[in-house]
Amino acid sequence: MNFNALFQAQIDTLKSEGNYRYFAELERKCGKFPHAASHHDGKVQDVTVWCSNDYLGMGQNPVVIEAMCEAVTRSGTGAGGTRNISGTNHDHLLLERELADLHNKEAALLFTSGYVSNWAALSTLGSRLEGCIILSDSGNHASMIEGIRHSRAQKVIWNHNDVKDLEAKLAALPVDAPKIVAFESVYSMDGDIAPIRQIVEVAEKYGAMTYLDEVHAVGLYGPRGGGIAEQEGLMDRITLIEGTLGKAYGVVGGYITGSSVLCDFIRSFASGFIFTTALPPAVAAAARVSIMHLKTSDSERQRQRQQVAKLRAGLNRAGIPHLENQSHIVPVMIKDPVKTKMLADYLMDEWGIYVQPINYPTVPKGTERLRFTPSPLHSDADIAYLVEALESLWKQCAIAHAVA
Amino acid sequence: MNFNALFQAQIDTLKSEGNYRYFAELERKCGKFPHAASHHDGKVQDVTVWCSNDYLGMGQNPVVIEAMCEAVTRSGTGAGGTRNISGTNHDHLLLERELADLHNKEAALLFTSGYVSNWAALSTLGSRLEGCIILSDSGNHASMIEGIRHSRAQKVIWNHNDVKDLEAKLAALPVDAPKIVAFESVYSMDGDIAPIRQIVEVAEKYGAMTYLDEVHAVGLYGPRGGGIAEQEGLMDRITLIEGTLGKAYGVVGGYITGSSVLCDFIRSFASGFIFTTALPPAVAAAARVSIMHLKTSDSERQRQRQQVAKLRAGLNRAGIPHLENQSHIVPVMIKDPVKTKMLADYLMDEWGIYVQPINYPTVPKGTERLRFTPSPLHSDADIAYLVEALESLWKQCAIAHAVA
Ligand SMILES: Cc1ncc(COP(=O)(O)O)c(C=O)c1O
Ligand SMILES: Cc1ncc(COP(=O)(O)O)c(C=O)c1O
Repeated sequence: MNFNALFQAQIDTLKSEGNYRYFAELERKCGKFPHAASHHDGKVQDVTVWCSNDYLGMGQNPVVIEAMCEAVTRSGTGAGGTRNISGTNHDHLLLERELADLHNKEAALLFTSGYVSNWAALSTLGSRLEGCIILSDSGNHASMIEGIRHSRAQKVIWNHNDVKDLEAKLAALPVDAPKIVAFESVYSMDGDIAPIRQIVEVAEKYGAMTYLDEVHAVGLYGPRGGGIAEQEGLMDRITLIEGTLGKAYGVVGGYITGSSVLCDFIRSFASGFIFTTALPPAVAAAARVSIMHLKTSDSERQRQRQQVAKLRAGLNRAGIPHLENQSHIVPVMIKDPVKTKMLADYLMDEWGIYVQPINYPTVPKGTERLRFTPSPLHSDADIAYLVEALESLWKQCAIAHAVA
Repeated sequence: MNFNALFQAQIDTLKSEGNYRYFAELERKCGKFPHAASHHDGKVQDVTVWCSNDYLGMGQNPVVIEAMCEAVTRSGTGAGGTRNISGTNHDHLLLERELADLHNKEAALLFTSGYVSNWAALSTLGSRLEGCIILSDSGNHASMIEGIRHSRAQKVIWNHNDVKDLEAKLAALPVDAPKIVAFESVYSMDGDIAPIRQIVEVAEKYGAMTYLDEVHAVGLYGPRGGGIAEQEGLMDRITLIEGTLGKAYGVVGGYITGSSVLCDFIRSFASGFIFTTALPPAVAAAARVSIMHLKTSDSERQRQRQQVAKLRAGLNRAGIPHLENQSHIVPVMIKDPVKTKMLADYLMDEWGIYVQPINYPTVPKGTERLRFTPSPLHSDADIAYLVEALESLWKQCAIAHAVA
């Protein structure tokens, strides 16, 4: 059997749809963020990164860098085992305590990524709670969708951020079945924010447990960076809060927090937690310092908000439509994969502006976009330059349209 | 609904079976491996780690440590995005090229862990190759089992390392269905090694693709550390070789290697590859240096083999039964979870020897064991001390048996 031909055929389909992905090859440079070097066709170009999820530039913060190097020098580059078999280090436990404290929960459990934490936690809950039904927001992230799918629990999808629909669906289910309402706080591609309070109230009314992904909110919202639930004073009412160490905290890894027995349950049964090498102690040490820093320092968050507001204002002045939302994510909708890539290529080649075209399956087909994530380290000049580039691009397109 | 009570009930069952897990809390100390500090009940004890999968101590090798610190200082602590959205760094591509070269393949693809690489690759192959049937060795690792389960492809389990059974099962399947034979080289818990040549021959005869997990072999076997397939001169005949960066290479991460179109296919469709933050560039840089080191340096492998042989000889002299195999893994079967834990606790408390009791679900119930992994850094004195400890323990048990 010619397997390569089977693979090629599916790749050809992707290409013909414009959905084939080309990765930009960057070199991050400490102290230069959001500026980086981009390798392409053997050439190296200086670019400004406008689509990073190192939202606050913590991945280049000197205290985080120092913590990582210190821990590497102290205990080496790896954990040397799964958590059970020699892989649990003091640094992991310190980080788990820090995370529990961040979300005001009894306990936390560390995973190799946010993806794995969602997948492992939801697949374990869904498969081990007998008769469990998972009510999943229609906009939920792939890692949750795959976790639910893997659990083979009954799944009910409710309309995105629609509390009425959630309530109708909860009301229709058997009273005594265990139910989990799974959703996110900040949705990463539209930047909209869930009505957490109403969702929690409805879930409580029907005795459902709540599962909240704060991946795009931790470090960024709430007085200590505990996320939207912290900002809204709702952490105590959510059964399980999940987050990442790879975005605002600038390192890598994922976690869940909740009651001690909940975390112990996932620890004891989740295949994706048990059967994998633990994160390097140095990663845990760096993430912990990043969290501690953002617990007390608000300046990064404030400055980020200012830069987000400046970009939005600039886009408005230039007449460039972008999705309104309450978050730090600025999506400019293009709605076609080929056009989105053309615009992104042009920005990169002509302006040294790097923004990845966002296409299917990250967003639904027909909602392709450019997604900008201003950080505290994007200067006013960076913003002005981006707006200028987009404005000139939009004008060219208008002319092209007029001529065509 | 009282969810905590539901969780507690399942944990209570684990405890009553003796299968509840207590993690040892270590502090790895650079330059001291296999010695480490163990935290327990507020006390700190010096211990010798006898169950690490940092098989060659590369996690504390000065060149690897330096590479990681250099890269952290150069480009920070995180990748800042998924591979598609600003997360691909030059260091990732250098590592992927190194891995392709290691296994003499066209291409390689990096994942956040070996677990994720197996899960993502098998679930993508199984779900996207129409009518695909996966023939899985009965001893395969959880990450492969879950990947196959997730794919929902038809699964046929063949008896562990039994080529006759594999052939019988292949012969019974429709000729024109795409088939994948999935297996490991070194099985981590028994330390036995697959008859790769015969498996490949049978797979070729029936036009099946071969999927080989070399997680416990890369770095350790073959003249350049390419694994058992390299040692046997079989790399070119295997469709996909999977490995980890978290065991012999001493860092963290996982990968697959194969044809360019195979890797591009997984890159383009695997949810577990697409929707997650890339590994920190510094992790990639460290792993690459570790691989490069073990490509040319054979002294770690030679010395490990010597120390493994010395431990086996010592155990034989002391009359302590252990599983025979051709690998670096020395299992001492106890066959009861409670007894295994008692022995391990005693070794830790009285002798400062840390070996994790291995219980279900890592091994089948009734095959609980102590699993020793001698490294090049275990001294002759460490080995003599371990044998002395086990000998005294075995004598005590014999006396206890005689009295009882
Ligand atoms: C909502 C959401 N949850 C989880 C994840 C996965 O987190 P991680 O990148 O740490 O794997 C992501 C993105 O990567 C995400 O957008
Ligand atoms: C055979 C096998 N495959 C894959 C894995 C997973 O690799 P990693 O630890 O890098 O996740 C392991 C153990 O952890 C394993 O034993």
